[in-house]
Amino acid sequence: MSDLRPPVVRDLLTHLQRLPGVGPRTARMLVEHLLTVPEDEVARLAGALASLRGAVRHCSRCALLTEDDPCAVCADSGRDQGVILVVEDPTAVWSVEATGEYRGLYHALLGHLSPLRGVGPDQLTIPLLVERVSPGSVREVILATNPTVEGETTALYLARRLQPSGVEVTRLASGIPVGGEVASVDQVTLTQALQLRRRL
Amino acid sequence: MSDLRPPVVRDLLTHLQRLPGVGPRTARMLVEHLLTVPEDEVARLAGALASLRGAVRHCSRCALLTEDDPCAVCADSGRDQGVILVVEDPTAVWSVEATGEYRGLYHALLGHLSPLRGVGPDQLTIPLLVERVSPGSVREVILATNPTVEGETTALYLARRLQPSGVEVTRLASGIPVGGEVASVDQVTLTQALQLRRRL
Repeated sequence: MSDLRPPVVRDLLTHLQRLPGVGPRTARMLVEHLLTVPEDEVARLAGALASLRGAVRHCSRCALLTEDDPCAVCADSGRDQGVILVVEDPTAVWSVEATGEYRGLYHALLGHLSPLRGVGPDQLTIPLLVERVSPGSVREVILATNPTVEGETTALYLARRLQPSGVEVTRLASGIPVGGEVASVDQVTLTQALQLRRRL
Repeated sequence: MSDLRPPVVRDLLTHLQRLPGVGPRTARMLVEHLLTVPEDEVARLAGALASLRGAVRHCSRCALLTEDDPCAVCADSGRDQGVILVVEDPTAVWSVEATGEYRGLYHALLGHLSPLRGVGPDQLTIPLLVERVSPGSVREVILATNPTVEGETTALYLARRLQPSGVEVTRLASGIPVGGEVASVDQVTLTQALQLRRRL
C-alpha cells in the first residue's frame, strides 16, 4: 500500500484540515472541487488568501478591520461622533451595520476578559476605549459584547470602568430571537425576556 | 448603512462561498479564523492552492492524479500488470489503496456515462481503457464505479464493451456497510445484500 496522493494534494489536504470545521472528508471534497473548476477560479481564491493578511489591519482608533488607517467609520465625519458601539470581535460590526439602524462609531475589544487565560483589560483594546471616551465628546457607549458569561463580565467591567467619565452606558437587549420559538429558547434567555418585557 | 468589510475580505468571502458546502456563515467563520492564526499558516494554504493546478495532472495512461507522467502506479513494475481496477473519480483510488488489499493497476474514467448531459464513452477515458486491455496482457478488470444508477450503467456498458477482449470483468460487491445497521440501510442495498448472501 502506497500513498497515491500527489505531494501537492497531500500538502493542500493538510492545510485545509487546519481550518475550523474541515475534516478529512470535507478537505477531500474541496480538493476534488478545486481540481475540476476553471483554473483561474482557484488562482483567484489563492490570490485573495495570499493578500488577506498583508492588506487587512486593525484601525488604530477603533480596531475594526480595515485596509486604510483610520478606517472608513472613523474617517467619516458624517457619522454621529457622540456614540460608540462596542463589540468583542471586529467582524460583528458587519451585522450591526447591515441593520441600517446605527450611524455612530464602533470599537472592537478584540476579545473578552478571561482571567483564567490571562486576558485582562490591557490585553484588549480597553485602554484605547477609555481614552476615546474621556474627552467628554461621547454621550453614549453601547455595549454589544456577546450575551455569554465572558461577554457579560466584560460589559460589567466596562460599565464600571467608564463610570467616572459620566458617559451613558447601555447594553443591547437580550431576549427571544425574532422568528424563534418560546418553547425552544433556553431558560436564561427566557428569564431575561420576562424581566425585560415591555408594555404594548 | 455602508459595507464595512475591507475589499480584500469581501473578495475572499466571495471566493470561499463558491466552494461546495460553504455558505455566508461558514465563509465568515473561515475569514475570522484566517485573520487570527499565524500569518505564515495562511501563506502556506495560499501557496498550496496556488501550486495545485500547475503541479497536478492526469496520468496519460490511467488518468490518476499525479505530478509525474506516467504516475507512480503505472511506473511501478512491481505491481500486478494483469489487473486494472476502474474508478469514476481518480481520488477514489486513495481509499482503495489504503485498504492494502490491492496491488494491481488503476484506471480513472473521469466521470460516468450520462447521455442527458452529453457524456458518452468518448467524453470519458473509456477508449484509453479499451486500448490498455486489448493487447491481452490484462487478465481481469475490476469495475469499481459507484453503486449509483449512473455508475451501474457505466459498469454494464464497460462489461459489454470489454467482452471481445476476453478479459474477466468483475464488479465490487454491494451490501450493508461494515459497522452499518440492517435497519437503517436502504431497500435497494438490502435487496443486493440478500441476493449476494454467502455461506458461512
